[in-house]
Amino acid sequence: MNAPTDIKLYMEDVGRRARAAARLVARADTATKNRALAAMAAAVRRDSAKLLAANAADVAAARASGKDDAFVDRLTLDEKSVETMAQGLEQVAALPDPVGEVSELRERPTGIRVGRMRVPLGVIGIIYESRPNVTADAAALCLKSGNATILRGGSESLRSNRAIAACVHEGLSAAGLPKDAVQVVDTADRAAVGELLRMDRYVDIIVPRGGKSLIERVMAESRIPMIKHLDGVCHVYIDEHADPERAIRIADNAKTQRYGTCNTMEALLVHEAIAPRVLPLLARIYIDKGVQLRCDEASRALIRAALGDSPLVTAATEQDFYTEYLAPILSVKLVASLDAAMEHIAKYGSQHTDAIVTEDEARAQRFLREVDSSSVMVNASTRFADGFEYGLGAEIGISTDKLHARGPVGLEGLTSQKYVVFGTGQVRT
Amino acid sequence: MNAPTDIKLYMEDVGRRARAAARLVARADTATKNRALAAMAAAVRRDSAKLLAANAADVAAARASGKDDAFVDRLTLDEKSVETMAQGLEQVAALPDPVGEVSELRERPTGIRVGRMRVPLGVIGIIYESRPNVTADAAALCLKSGNATILRGGSESLRSNRAIAACVHEGLSAAGLPKDAVQVVDTADRAAVGELLRMDRYVDIIVPRGGKSLIERVMAESRIPMIKHLDGVCHVYIDEHADPERAIRIADNAKTQRYGTCNTMEALLVHEAIAPRVLPLLARIYIDKGVQLRCDEASRALIRAALGDSPLVTAATEQDFYTEYLAPILSVKLVASLDAAMEHIAKYGSQHTDAIVTEDEARAQRFLREVDSSSVMVNASTRFADGFEYGLGAEIGISTDKLHARGPVGLEGLTSQKYVVFGTGQVRT
Repeated sequence: MNAPTDIKLYMEDVGRRARAAARLVARADTATKNRALAAMAAAVRRDSAKLLAANAADVAAARASGKDDAFVDRLTLDEKSVETMAQGLEQVAALPDPVGEVSELRERPTGIRVGRMRVPLGVIGIIYESRPNVTADAAALCLKSGNATILRGGSESLRSNRAIAACVHEGLSAAGLPKDAVQVVDTADRAAVGELLRMDRYVDIIVPRGGKSLIERVMAESRIPMIKHLDGVCHVYIDEHADPERAIRIADNAKTQRYGTCNTMEALLVHEAIAPRVLPLLARIYIDKGVQLRCDEASRALIRAALGDSPLVTAATEQDFYTEYLAPILSVKLVASLDAAMEHIAKYGSQHTDAIVTEDEARAQRFLREVDSSSVMVNASTRFADGFEYGLGAEIGISTDKLHARGPVGLEGLTSQKYVVFGTGQVRT
Repeated sequence: MNAPTDIKLYMEDVGRRARAAARLVARADTATKNRALAAMAAAVRRDSAKLLAANAADVAAARASGKDDAFVDRLTLDEKSVETMAQGLEQVAALPDPVGEVSELRERPTGIRVGRMRVPLGVIGIIYESRPNVTADAAALCLKSGNATILRGGSESLRSNRAIAACVHEGLSAAGLPKDAVQVVDTADRAAVGELLRMDRYVDIIVPRGGKSLIERVMAESRIPMIKHLDGVCHVYIDEHADPERAIRIADNAKTQRYGTCNTMEALLVHEAIAPRVLPLLARIYIDKGVQLRCDEASRALIRAALGDSPLVTAATEQDFYTEYLAPILSVKLVASLDAAMEHIAKYGSQHTDAIVTEDEARAQRFLREVDSSSVMVNASTRFADGFEYGLGAEIGISTDKLHARGPVGLEGLTSQKYVVFGTGQVRT
């Protein structure tokens, strides 16, 4: 299994099996898929000790090879996270099944009736890093949406992923579905990823989940269509017509509720007319929480005048405004108008999630319509950009692409619509 | 304009202008866009003689360089096609504007309201071959859907495209929209296509319209997402429970109404139980129309027994069943079951358009659900797979991709949906 030629053959076999299984799982009815998910959840609960033992071996190996604490933290499972995994499988079972739904059925002048049917995408390849819970989550979402899945987790979590895959396979078999509907790539050889990215005959969609370097590698190597998100350079713009109390609450939450998530605010834009009333108060909050502020000249002067010098308040570089910090660091800038704010977002943003705080309906509407991001918000924290918060039930990721699904991608985003035509012998003249 | 470094600079400039114009056209209201389209139509009608003179020069040059009749035919405009172009612009003006439409607005337990807003894709690059009418059609569809467009037509139609572009720009200016919203790449240098395919900073979507070699080049060179269709290997399956009269009418029309279109049937599958009642009659019709039949052994024996030998009836090779003939040639095969028919379509088809003829509702439903093509039909001719026939008003092409739009792509397919969130100060806890 280690020579490159073997990896090629192995992956070819994985692809062929996935393609064959995709046709079977696409036609599986809702009850069958839900039975499989329930059986997977039961197996995960029953095998909790086995999963934790496998995971402990992965964690020990990762520590021995010198991985840092953040890495080990993402890799580690405990009893609570195993239970969360089982609950996640049950939650996906409870979601409505999008497959087969026919909409927009209309009769045409020729007498044919034309509608659209929601259908699975086919075979989905998911490439992720160290979090083993993705194995169960992704398997569940792809199965429920009628797709076959090839899961390629980080090589450091292979023992954990194998143990989870055993539960997934038990669930599939219990419902009479083919095991090949969910395959875990069972090799630590990194060449497997390269093979997966080239298997356009077998793989319809690639979903890379991980850091920017993973996404960039996948973009560089693969011609298979992707559902991905590259960056989360999210903005909050406090408009001159903002309610100051709301503005402060939202800007605080958007930055400090969690620092490492893609929907965390990375740059704060404040209208210069309202800045004296909100920015000093906000700066106080951030500084007390240990957030570094990288400021343009005007915002820095305002903060310094109000609060004096602080080592946490420094001058921003041009590059700072392009940066997704994923850390207690925030770019800050005063703007002279709504248009200037939207120009800034268009230039420096990553089209992920951007919010305006304003009490002015017309300005809110302009921001909503003109800011071209996957989620655009009025008077709410960017941290709401999430499949659960939006009511999708779960998400495979948050897309910053423009085609197909934008924003949090749930079951519907793992399907597309084909045309269905009902005739009674019509021909074209 | 001919040295490669100049082409690079020129295309860079085109891209930058398109990106800037995209933001303006995205926010243009419906009345403004419709005013531009009406003014374009008026300019096309007024300049009819100019357009025809420019086109005549293209046609003369194409003939002089030895292009074949089919090529010259696609290139040639006449008074009627110029009028059709003007009418096409007016028809797009009359279509509903999808941009800005908010749907699925729902309140979540946190109090935020979450919906989806339909928005333009941004900058669309269209690469097409010799038909100059695409210049007007594509410009209209992209403008109405709020996108900026970069049009790269065949170098042989450059004079025609320039003349059409002048009318398009006059219309844009009349409505106060930027001319850069529709740019025709004004060089015959083929290096421009390569540049366009690499400009992922400026171009959101590439739509290649043309033959397979064009599409394959674009797929090989570009990493920009595409709306494309590669092949139209369309099937009609005559089920054992088909009405023979309907089956014959549909199979005749699907093959012979036009030979060169992507929704023309290329392979006929007939259930062996009904074949004796329909295939000899159908073969007679095809032979009388000069259609070559490339048959599997069983269908050939049946036709020979009924009609005797014919030079038009020959043995099919494996490769024939993969072939999009775009000509009076048809592959024919008998199958033992609905499942065998669907297996054949899954293996040899191109996921474009496939039809079943049957009076059995359950079998029709299985075919509709299980055949994974962009259009799946019951008792209707594959020739209906078309934006006008489906009620989209017009189409930019027919997609055989699985992400985003499948089948005929109209205005809606040139947009996507972003999330919009309305709060009253909510933060995440």
